[in-house]
Amino acid sequence: MKALFSPDTIALIGASGDPAKNTARPQLYLRKHGYKGRVFPINPTRSEVLGEQAWPDLKSATEAAGSAIEHAYVMVPKAAVEGVIDDCVAAGVKVASIYSDGFAETGADGLEAQQKLVGRARQGGLRLIGPNSMGAVNVQAGMAMTTNAGFEAPALIPGPFSVISQSGTALGGLLSRGQARGFGFSKLLSIGTESDLSVGEVTRFLVDDDDTGAILLFLETLRFPDHLAAAARAARAAGKPVIAYKLGRSDAGRQMAVSHSGALAGPDEAADAFFRHHGILRVDTLEALLEVPFLAMGRAPSRKRAAAPRVAVMSTTGGGAAMVVDRLGLAGVEFAAPPESVVDKLSEHGIRTGSGPIVDLTMVGARPDVYGPVLRGLIDDADCDAVVCVVGSSAQFRPDVAVGPILAEGKGDKPVAVFCVPEATETLKVLADEGFAGFRTPESCADALAAFFHWHLPPSEDAGDFDPAPVEALLGEAKDEEGALKVFQALGVHAAPFQILKKGETTTGIDFPVAAKVLSGDIAHKTEAGGVVLNIENEAGLSAAVEKIFDNAQKAHPTADINGVLVQAMQSGLAEVLIGYRLDAEAGPVVVLGMGGVLTEITGDACVRLAPVNLETAHEMIAAVRGLAGIRGYRNLPQGDLDALADAVRAVSRLALIEGGVIKEAEINPLIVKPKGEGVAAVDGLIVMEEGR
Amino acid sequence: MKALFSPDTIALIGASGDPAKNTARPQLYLRKHGYKGRVFPINPTRSEVLGEQAWPDLKSATEAAGSAIEHAYVMVPKAAVEGVIDDCVAAGVKVASIYSDGFAETGADGLEAQQKLVGRARQGGLRLIGPNSMGAVNVQAGMAMTTNAGFEAPALIPGPFSVISQSGTALGGLLSRGQARGFGFSKLLSIGTESDLSVGEVTRFLVDDDDTGAILLFLETLRFPDHLAAAARAARAAGKPVIAYKLGRSDAGRQMAVSHSGALAGPDEAADAFFRHHGILRVDTLEALLEVPFLAMGRAPSRKRAAAPRVAVMSTTGGGAAMVVDRLGLAGVEFAAPPESVVDKLSEHGIRTGSGPIVDLTMVGARPDVYGPVLRGLIDDADCDAVVCVVGSSAQFRPDVAVGPILAEGKGDKPVAVFCVPEATETLKVLADEGFAGFRTPESCADALAAFFHWHLPPSEDAGDFDPAPVEALLGEAKDEEGALKVFQALGVHAAPFQILKKGETTTGIDFPVAAKVLSGDIAHKTEAGGVVLNIENEAGLSAAVEKIFDNAQKAHPTADINGVLVQAMQSGLAEVLIGYRLDAEAGPVVVLGMGGVLTEITGDACVRLAPVNLETAHEMIAAVRGLAGIRGYRNLPQGDLDALADAVRAVSRLALIEGGVIKEAEINPLIVKPKGEGVAAVDGLIVMEEGR
Repeated sequence: MKALFSPDTIALIGASGDPAKNTARPQLYLRKHGYKGRVFPINPTRSEVLGEQAWPDLKSATEAAGSAIEHAYVMVPKAAVEGVIDDCVAAGVKVASIYSDGFAETGADGLEAQQKLVGRARQGGLRLIGPNSMGAVNVQAGMAMTTNAGFEAPALIPGPFSVISQSGTALGGLLSRGQARGFGFSKLLSIGTESDLSVGEVTRFLVDDDDTGAILLFLETLRFPDHLAAAARAARAAGKPVIAYKLGRSDAGRQMAVSHSGALAGPDEAADAFFRHHGILRVDTLEALLEVPFLAMGRAPSRKRAAAPRVAVMSTTGGGAAMVVDRLGLAGVEFAAPPESVVDKLSEHGIRTGSGPIVDLTMVGARPDVYGPVLRGLIDDADCDAVVCVVGSSAQFRPDVAVGPILAEGKGDKPVAVFCVPEATETLKVLADEGFAGFRTPESCADALAAFFHWHLPPSEDAGDFDPAPVEALLGEAKDEEGALKVFQALGVHAAPFQILKKGETTTGIDFPVAAKVLSGDIAHKTEAGGVVLNIENEAGLSAAVEKIFDNAQKAHPTADINGVLVQAMQSGLAEVLIGYRLDAEAGPVVVLGMGGVLTEITGDACVRLAPVNLETAHEMIAAVRGLAGIRGYRNLPQGDLDALADAVRAVSRLALIEGGVIKEAEINPLIVKPKGEGVAAVDGLIVMEEGR
Repeated sequence: MKALFSPDTIALIGASGDPAKNTARPQLYLRKHGYKGRVFPINPTRSEVLGEQAWPDLKSATEAAGSAIEHAYVMVPKAAVEGVIDDCVAAGVKVASIYSDGFAETGADGLEAQQKLVGRARQGGLRLIGPNSMGAVNVQAGMAMTTNAGFEAPALIPGPFSVISQSGTALGGLLSRGQARGFGFSKLLSIGTESDLSVGEVTRFLVDDDDTGAILLFLETLRFPDHLAAAARAARAAGKPVIAYKLGRSDAGRQMAVSHSGALAGPDEAADAFFRHHGILRVDTLEALLEVPFLAMGRAPSRKRAAAPRVAVMSTTGGGAAMVVDRLGLAGVEFAAPPESVVDKLSEHGIRTGSGPIVDLTMVGARPDVYGPVLRGLIDDADCDAVVCVVGSSAQFRPDVAVGPILAEGKGDKPVAVFCVPEATETLKVLADEGFAGFRTPESCADALAAFFHWHLPPSEDAGDFDPAPVEALLGEAKDEEGALKVFQALGVHAAPFQILKKGETTTGIDFPVAAKVLSGDIAHKTEAGGVVLNIENEAGLSAAVEKIFDNAQKAHPTADINGVLVQAMQSGLAEVLIGYRLDAEAGPVVVLGMGGVLTEITGDACVRLAPVNLETAHEMIAAVRGLAGIRGYRNLPQGDLDALADAVRAVSRLALIEGGVIKEAEINPLIVKPKGEGVAAVDGLIVMEEGR
């Protein structure tokens, strides 16, 4: 950590003497922003670079320094990087940040070259940042060791924001946007492709950094979720919010993350589940990443997870408030009616408070003796979770008047957000100086509040009593539907009674009506293969069905291994759901609950959480699937057995407790949910093991 | 129009001499911004106001003017407004803008008072703006006749944007935000509660205004959709885009619009259908309202409505581009791969173009001799509908360099959007000066492009041959399911064969199996009342069912009028849909297609269009409902009879052609969609007439 952000000595390996080149920038910016340590430009062809003494190699620079250089910034062509890393090891460098590109993001060869670098560094006790790192910055120390042109800024404003970015450009983008608003920064790191030091590890460092008040992450992928989870835990203990903006919400964005950084990418819902689980605030809009820290700093994530948050909105302008209210409504926020004390105060001044969601002070709002007490009254209201103040045109020309009463009365435990209707740079700066969250747009205001309200403590880790052994014993046989259903039964999920018939067999112990389905790990689409007969009423029908299924399946898939016909009691219930388990490429094990059938991925009506889940989280998932409203009691429709469904979700999620991550994917589809008290029944199941298992 | 925005004389009725008061502002701002006409402050108690001569009443001011004053701004207390309007009529004033509030937005009494004002004004040949109007501004004429403090700005930038806002504050908000970006304005009007002159009428004026290039609407409600529709038609003919930002997207926002402006509010989907139908660009984010005009001005709405738009993204920064790509992906945009000419050009410079959605120029992008030709190549590519240029840190410190090649090569028919990763006020101004669309955030960039791509010519008006007489003849009897089904049959929708049995009757001509349902306009929930029996296999079953239904229904609803039992052939198909018709409070007649059942309003999976629709639009609606993917051929599932479904949608939509708006609501739920070629069948229907019909 010291060598990374507070080194006494920096070597710039490959420093250019041409100020137009990116590789000249670190030296220029270190000088510009007043770095107090010693800088050693390394350039084999020049004894002077940009007016400062240069050294031909790291060895000579180290000798000149008198002891090992702490941080080396490697800006040489790809082919030379390996040699430079060896030099760094030999010279006792502690951290090397690699600007050079052409490694993991270019494919298998690049990845191999990168792994080689890391191997050599680790062996030599050297830690790496990058490749593809635009550098590291410590604002308080004037250490602007970066190729990012955003640091050409005349001055850096010191403050509590520290940023780790997988995108180099975003670092400058965030700096310039933040500084324009008067926000100050502490550490900024372009972490590149994370060959060695990860986002999570550096986050963990920053938790211990006294100058860091909030940790902002600009992410393209999640490479080491366990590191980040551990860091988030430490950050929570230290009272520092971790806030993430992550790309990959759309298919195009995911494809781009893969091609741009060589990263893996899972569906966004899994990443979202990861952030939610670990108490990391996730914002959706770019500017909210910079604006939300003021809501979160000095506050703790909430314990309650279920109820909708209630916001009080006060305004001197109805139209301006309507923009925020409309947006907050879209974000699922509810509104707190003003308490009686505020209603009374307002009626003293002839202001009627209607049934609407806001307190509109109209002209009277210009009087601080009205504004202040009303704001205080809303803050003190136990029924309200946050207050939004909407400021009109005064924000543009009279910053102090506009937010004076907010600064005076708005401090305390309860978050106060301020949205300015006009362009109001100065007012927003005044707010930031006093630690208040000000917002430029109704969109980022609503986004930040929604992120804040989704900021919860992680669910308790009660996996419950679970013995994985019986499940593990069955995994080897889980190659077809029978094997999969047995695994789900071992997990504790009730399956519809079933029995396997071989060719020629026609008797089962299962009551009619039954369904008969071909049993084969080689036939993915049973219906299309003529391998399914439903509603069989008697033994004659079953006999005919079994014969037909064998015939059809063999015709459709002559080479398939057919293990028999699975006969199953027909099931009926109130809803068909899908419960899935998956080892996500980014977030790790996740469990999914959605509506059954083939359309779930089109309608997107599903809920994803990190696995395993406890019963409370399972119930939250049931509440989050829109299509399940019918069995939750909507319009007095008969309720489904939600407790049994929650049990089944938890049971499937426990696949995450099987050692070794051998299960790639598992799914019950459909699981029939019966009326309250009558349970659930798995009808069809599938388990896919990791290759080679 | 002349009196509204270019009057030679203005009377400020109720002008205050206290500069701290809102009612002093119009006089101050008119002076400040150089209004050349004559201003007559009217104040009964002072001969001088703010250093200018004042008159005790309109009569004396008119005498002093020598002829009728053209525009009066009425800023007196509510109780005095009526008298002032009479004075205006007497004095021959052409337009009066009313700042005073307390009218329609306060309820029935206020509405009555407002209607009285309008009655007197109309009779006297006076047109009204407001009440609740913060005034009218003509930037080119320095006519800042407004109480909005946003016009305290030192100078107003003239330009092509004209704004009509139902919210007074929003006017100043938009002005300040636009001016900060270097955008110039022409006319700005706070239209208040539209007692007389409507948004549509003023839009129509602005179409003919030479200084207006784009018309921006800030809306809380749609009060006179026909006016706006007519104005949109004229705007299209004149090549001027009309762009709307409308509140009421969330329930809270709708509630607020109602309480704030006394307006009616329908679901947002109907308003959206209105904008789409009439070729009005609708943006979702506040800033896009100001940014999108540069995309639309000088371009025409597209003819094609179905295919996904394709965007080419070029960038010098992968991370910055990823932000826009991710957002565009969420907005449903697709990406155009670079054409071969561009790929070749890039490989000359050692840049490989991967399979990803963007052209990443990396460092080479700094060379104008590369950037320009690549941009030109993308623009010339017939497979691409728009180009997005993402500009990195150069945008912050070197505006001309950053966008020089874009200004040089980016002009022409195809829209070019520019997103700046850092804070880059100057660069954005340079772009605006040259008429390019620049964007501050990835969110507004994607929003604006999506709005642009949804900008279509209205569908052709082929209602087809339709004789409303047979339908009208049946409406009087459409009080129960039988009557409703007969209306739908008359419209041309195939209904499942049905017949009505009276008590004791048991024979029908309908083949078994059948369903039997109680027939009564007084029983809303038939199933709950025990009034439905399904899958009746034979006459004995039917006899029992009919008896049971009469018994149950009479027990559950002793006072209900029971018209018999409706017996209907059981239907099966591939999907159950809902087709609805509604007279929307804002948008007028709309038709809705959604998934059948009770959950449609929870899942929100429905498509709304203005009624009537033609077959092409009906097919678009079918394509827009996610849950219908199954019958559209997704995953090789059997296709439904989409042609028959489109026919049914068009048929129901034709209820809009019944004279007099007598039908409030109509719904077929469910309509069974059978396999391709087998048609559809309405199973249950409902028609609700306007009260008093």
